[in-house]
Amino acid sequence: MTEALILHEYAASGNCYKVRLTAALLGLQLERREYDIMAGETRTPDFLAQVNANGRIPVLQVGDRFIPESNAACFYLADGSALIPADRFDRADMLRWMFWEQYNHEPNVATLRFWRGWIGEANWSELQRAQFPAKRAAGEAALQLLDEHLAEQDWLVGGALTIADIALYAYTHVAEGGGFSLAHYPAVQAWLKRVEATPNYIRMSV
Amino acid sequence: MTEALILHEYAASGNCYKVRLTAALLGLQLERREYDIMAGETRTPDFLAQVNANGRIPVLQVGDRFIPESNAACFYLADGSALIPADRFDRADMLRWMFWEQYNHEPNVATLRFWRGWIGEANWSELQRAQFPAKRAAGEAALQLLDEHLAEQDWLVGGALTIADIALYAYTHVAEGGGFSLAHYPAVQAWLKRVEATPNYIRMSV
Repeated sequence: MTEALILHEYAASGNCYKVRLTAALLGLQLERREYDIMAGETRTPDFLAQVNANGRIPVLQVGDRFIPESNAACFYLADGSALIPADRFDRADMLRWMFWEQYNHEPNVATLRFWRGWIGEANWSELQRAQFPAKRAAGEAALQLLDEHLAEQDWLVGGALTIADIALYAYTHVAEGGGFSLAHYPAVQAWLKRVEATPNYIRMSV
Repeated sequence: MTEALILHEYAASGNCYKVRLTAALLGLQLERREYDIMAGETRTPDFLAQVNANGRIPVLQVGDRFIPESNAACFYLADGSALIPADRFDRADMLRWMFWEQYNHEPNVATLRFWRGWIGEANWSELQRAQFPAKRAAGEAALQLLDEHLAEQDWLVGGALTIADIALYAYTHVAEGGGFSLAHYPAVQAWLKRVEATPNYIRMSV
């Protein structure tokens, strides 16, 4: 890639880690710019006007253009590489898992990690307390569905790691931070190890 | 496409309509199989085992294989067509809007339409009542962001309609069913008309 790549991020965010992990597996260099989301640094007028009107990270900057949404940023980096299947059905199936991640997995598994680890249960609002049981159940259901799928195949799609595995690895491997026990999901645990054995794998904490 | 295409759906769902609209614009024939989601027809053991372990529609069946997640199904149908940009940045930017749709738009704009039109406010649970103000505000914020973007360009990405426009059109054009007033969003209204003027456009109610 000829244009400079800059990742606007908060390093502890699994969504940001997805982009770093994709870049690492591809051998791409990313410049990193850190924002303190707890201090509102992604909601400033400058950030909203220049980086992402949606006030969220990660955002991948490519030259002077910006791609918000973690899974779209991963797709950009991996486009044309072996991390995206060449087969038409498999390519759509990969996106299926990535949309499922954002709709069924992240709002439960990742959100509870954030609520527990960053907000703290003692500080939860009444609405958060009311939502907790449903988010807990939906998170377990997502991990269960993943476990059943991975009991039958090594990778989410086809016979090799794709960015769908990266997208789902990011918050699954730290699900215990959300109060989920991975001991209940042996096929998920074996798959996490396979991801971690991939050449050029990097850990979340850097 | 040589394999038969079957859409497992609930016709009033905007997510299902996305797939029908994509197929229509491409001139592809879809066989349609209707499920009554209110009667739990997508949670039967047969549906979970054969169509989608996640218990949701739409699911696009391609021969004897299945693609859940509306936006992934649209991508499958449109892959290789003018509905997906050939440019690498634009292709990722299109996916950016589609992931944003599933994370920021659909859970608010579409969910409130479902709560109002299918469940009925009189039947809302305490948790639904507690979630309503945040979902209403998040839905307005999503429509506002869309309006500001579309005030500057005719289509979400590049200079032509893509499946990102289809994905966001589906629930935006019926947002009033969720209690949102499109009168506040003139650029959105103009864009809805542009989508509706596209050759081979079909309405949601068929």
